[in-house]
Amino acid sequence: MGNKKYVVGVDFGTLSGRAVVVDVANGDELSESVYEYPHAVMDRELPCGVKLDDNFALQHPADYIETLSKIIPDAVSKAGLKKEDICGLGIDFTACTLIPTYEDGTPLCFDEKFKCNPHAYVKLWKHHAAQPEADAINKIAAERGEDWLAVYGGKVSSEWALPKIWQTLDEAPEVYEAADRFTEAADWLSFMLTGVETHAAVFAGYKALWNAESGYPSGDFCASLDERMRNIVGTKLSEKVLPVNEIAGLINEKGAEITGLAVGTPLALPMIDAHAALPALNITADGELVIIMGTSSCHIINSKKEIKVPGICGYVKDGVVPGYYTYEAGQACVGDGFDRFVKKCVPESYTAEAKQRDISIHKLLREKAEKLAPGESGLLCLDWFNGNRSVLVDADLSGMILGLTLNTMPEEIYRALIEATAYGTRMIIDTFEQSGIEIKSICACGGIARKDAMMMQIYADVTGREIRIAGTTQAGALGSAIYASVAGGAYGTITEAAENISKPDHSVYHPNLENKKIYDKLYAEYALLHDYFGRGENDVMKRLAALKK
Amino acid sequence: MGNKKYVVGVDFGTLSGRAVVVDVANGDELSESVYEYPHAVMDRELPCGVKLDDNFALQHPADYIETLSKIIPDAVSKAGLKKEDICGLGIDFTACTLIPTYEDGTPLCFDEKFKCNPHAYVKLWKHHAAQPEADAINKIAAERGEDWLAVYGGKVSSEWALPKIWQTLDEAPEVYEAADRFTEAADWLSFMLTGVETHAAVFAGYKALWNAESGYPSGDFCASLDERMRNIVGTKLSEKVLPVNEIAGLINEKGAEITGLAVGTPLALPMIDAHAALPALNITADGELVIIMGTSSCHIINSKKEIKVPGICGYVKDGVVPGYYTYEAGQACVGDGFDRFVKKCVPESYTAEAKQRDISIHKLLREKAEKLAPGESGLLCLDWFNGNRSVLVDADLSGMILGLTLNTMPEEIYRALIEATAYGTRMIIDTFEQSGIEIKSICACGGIARKDAMMMQIYADVTGREIRIAGTTQAGALGSAIYASVAGGAYGTITEAAENISKPDHSVYHPNLENKKIYDKLYAEYALLHDYFGRGENDVMKRLAALKK
Repeated sequence: MGNKKYVVGVDFGTLSGRAVVVDVANGDELSESVYEYPHAVMDRELPCGVKLDDNFALQHPADYIETLSKIIPDAVSKAGLKKEDICGLGIDFTACTLIPTYEDGTPLCFDEKFKCNPHAYVKLWKHHAAQPEADAINKIAAERGEDWLAVYGGKVSSEWALPKIWQTLDEAPEVYEAADRFTEAADWLSFMLTGVETHAAVFAGYKALWNAESGYPSGDFCASLDERMRNIVGTKLSEKVLPVNEIAGLINEKGAEITGLAVGTPLALPMIDAHAALPALNITADGELVIIMGTSSCHIINSKKEIKVPGICGYVKDGVVPGYYTYEAGQACVGDGFDRFVKKCVPESYTAEAKQRDISIHKLLREKAEKLAPGESGLLCLDWFNGNRSVLVDADLSGMILGLTLNTMPEEIYRALIEATAYGTRMIIDTFEQSGIEIKSICACGGIARKDAMMMQIYADVTGREIRIAGTTQAGALGSAIYASVAGGAYGTITEAAENISKPDHSVYHPNLENKKIYDKLYAEYALLHDYFGRGENDVMKRLAALKK
Repeated sequence: MGNKKYVVGVDFGTLSGRAVVVDVANGDELSESVYEYPHAVMDRELPCGVKLDDNFALQHPADYIETLSKIIPDAVSKAGLKKEDICGLGIDFTACTLIPTYEDGTPLCFDEKFKCNPHAYVKLWKHHAAQPEADAINKIAAERGEDWLAVYGGKVSSEWALPKIWQTLDEAPEVYEAADRFTEAADWLSFMLTGVETHAAVFAGYKALWNAESGYPSGDFCASLDERMRNIVGTKLSEKVLPVNEIAGLINEKGAEITGLAVGTPLALPMIDAHAALPALNITADGELVIIMGTSSCHIINSKKEIKVPGICGYVKDGVVPGYYTYEAGQACVGDGFDRFVKKCVPESYTAEAKQRDISIHKLLREKAEKLAPGESGLLCLDWFNGNRSVLVDADLSGMILGLTLNTMPEEIYRALIEATAYGTRMIIDTFEQSGIEIKSICACGGIARKDAMMMQIYADVTGREIRIAGTTQAGALGSAIYASVAGGAYGTITEAAENISKPDHSVYHPNLENKKIYDKLYAEYALLHDYFGRGENDVMKRLAALKK
């Protein structure tokens, strides 16, 4: 390892990228740097003015390169280091965040002839316009009895690669035809920095229906969707897939120009943002559930066992920690839902009170909501304002509030929205356990986990379990730094690196058993409505969504 | 009729009383006067500081006398008339609005020893704290097969006399024992103004389970609720019940002192506020539905037929127009629900826009909501924010909003709330027709009917029927004036008086049949959820209400 004892971990989120410089000996974070994507999320129009349809969520790939060129040099310089001091680089990214490119990696949207075509841009993870394609994939795969379907809990999400690719074919066949590859943004960055095209198993496994034994779905299956997709595997979907213990490559001259790092610096195989949190919290063994809480939530757990759990997002072997199956589930609307409420549903009197006291509206609502006992509001919500990811996997489901009276107060609804996300998490935990994946402990990370004590106590009370809060507020970037430290040769294994670099526990919430008793009743009501609206007994939400279109 | 050709009609609402002076020859309104009750609705504490339980809604009877003493002299003087010019007085009142009194009519709350006892005050129509008693009455009456139950659609509402009386016995037996009578506020005013105790059939019939053939429920039934109630009929519940064509009495010296009218002026038998609207709109025949729209809505229809309609509030023969059965149904939350939304759920940006443009928030929301097509929001509500009156008769049901997404806008919810009340009205119309009471036409009155063109168009589209809007904005007071004109001898019958004095049509809304097609689909969804949550398939709303307590 010589005198190079530092790594850079980069976390690409929905709106910004963040770099941290980490001391590989002890995990100390020396500096950080953040840059917001100039084009943010494009959900109304393209830069050239072309309007976007509902449910589109696009990004501009130039923003990612620009971000790297800002944050890496800045973080290294803030840490008082030189490029020679950096022994490895690691990157995590949102997924499935998909770019159509030419053979050499050039995004189609860089081509003058496609710059006004929405489908030539990056389809961000939360691009939800491919639900019709996802529905058709699910129907056809079930009819054909495709083996891989059970790996994904029986349902393909509209957020994943195949629906997004098929939507491109449906709506912009010229883009589909011109694209040599549909690549995850993370893998595209690897290519841009090293000159070597690779695809990390974790992305291919979770988002593109790939697995190490049988690869991607068959050409026959793809052709059963659309004959023009018969030869997609090995062409538009690359088969150069590598497991987690390999490196992506070494930074080349172009990569060095972008990042300011030395030519030859090893780049770790990129990781999905949520999954990077596991080593950051020193979670590399069996049965430890991590909940990454932000605008949405991810639930990730390692297991030695391969079990087909219904309604989860999927599992991948050797994707996150070598030797383990890593399972992922998720909730599509957490912080996003509370923000929506604060922006659109809080009356002027509350806004004025918050302003007068110089606190945020979230803080004001929490103060008022904290005084409520479980069940006191009489409210019950379904937290499906952005569809349901796990365990129903249906973007056409929607939010519901029940129990409203003329006296219902805003803080009561706010608390009920928080409780609903806790019930959603308990539903995921119950589904894992009923399928045979035991949950031995829970650790939460992400901004909300550290900031919102009321919410975390509600999660402990609703699940009836201790919830540990991560010691780092930047689990993604720190996790990337851990992968970078292995790529850079500072440690031989992820487990060893995690033991030295991770920041596991900041605090612990213990369940209040009196509250739990009431929440058990409320959860039973939630579960009843969850199944009624979500499992086909009354498809009113789907019919209303169809009528809306 | 001599030279006395004017009458005074007085309408006692929830928060204020209003008098109009009317020319009996042509119905011209010469003047009006309004006075707000000083104690308004007491739902948090008594004047002496005693706190009230949830769901209490009390009033102070002194407010009613004070109101009469202000508005009648004021209206007569504004009209440029003298007391000798007034040939009759009519009063309508909310119901069931119940006062415990001594034999001589003195309210118990006037007695020093009861002035801090909530049960000694007026229980306003919307006092909903007697739901447990109503539930028990319904259960026991059904078990005993009581004949009268079917007259009330199979259910007694917690708003009615017997639950309110029984709650008094349960919670304040000393008040129950001391009360010689439980009297409707309207009948109490008759007593105070004439010195003669009478009880109008319309109140006894709709609110106290009385009918002309068999009187009140039997002593055995009352004893089956509580042995101490065995002898209630003829004592605490007076049997001095008169049909609509009789007068209450002549104003005595005390009455003259209060009202400023001449001693001997005839006082019409009082009318329930909503029912007074029928003659005011010249509706005295078969099959013409009147909807009185305000904080809540009433649906009233005359029929020659006696039919037991499930879930309606009841019917009374000779209560409103001699020779007819008058049926009533209702929705407990209409304007109240929109006001709640404006007060508690509209963000600062909207408040600021309304202020800047100097328009009300209701108007701003209507402007935005008007641009939406049916079904465009993807939302569906159940309008049960104040329980459901018809056709489910259950105060423990609650409001629901479904179809919410991260993009849902306030005006979309506002419109969905309005649409939900329209579905509720269609449910009532369908129930009447399915039971054999044909609805030949619809006329709407009340503040909302005149002011909110968008809402009335939605009602026309949802019901698929023409909706006529009343020509008077004060249907209650004008109706009372019509009853006063018969009591004063200006006309021989209500029908004749109504033909001359009523103000039927201001405008007509015609259904848009394209919208109707979409609303038919949405109404089918509403009906499905209505039955699921309201008819026992999933009693989650009732369980949540119980947990709340």
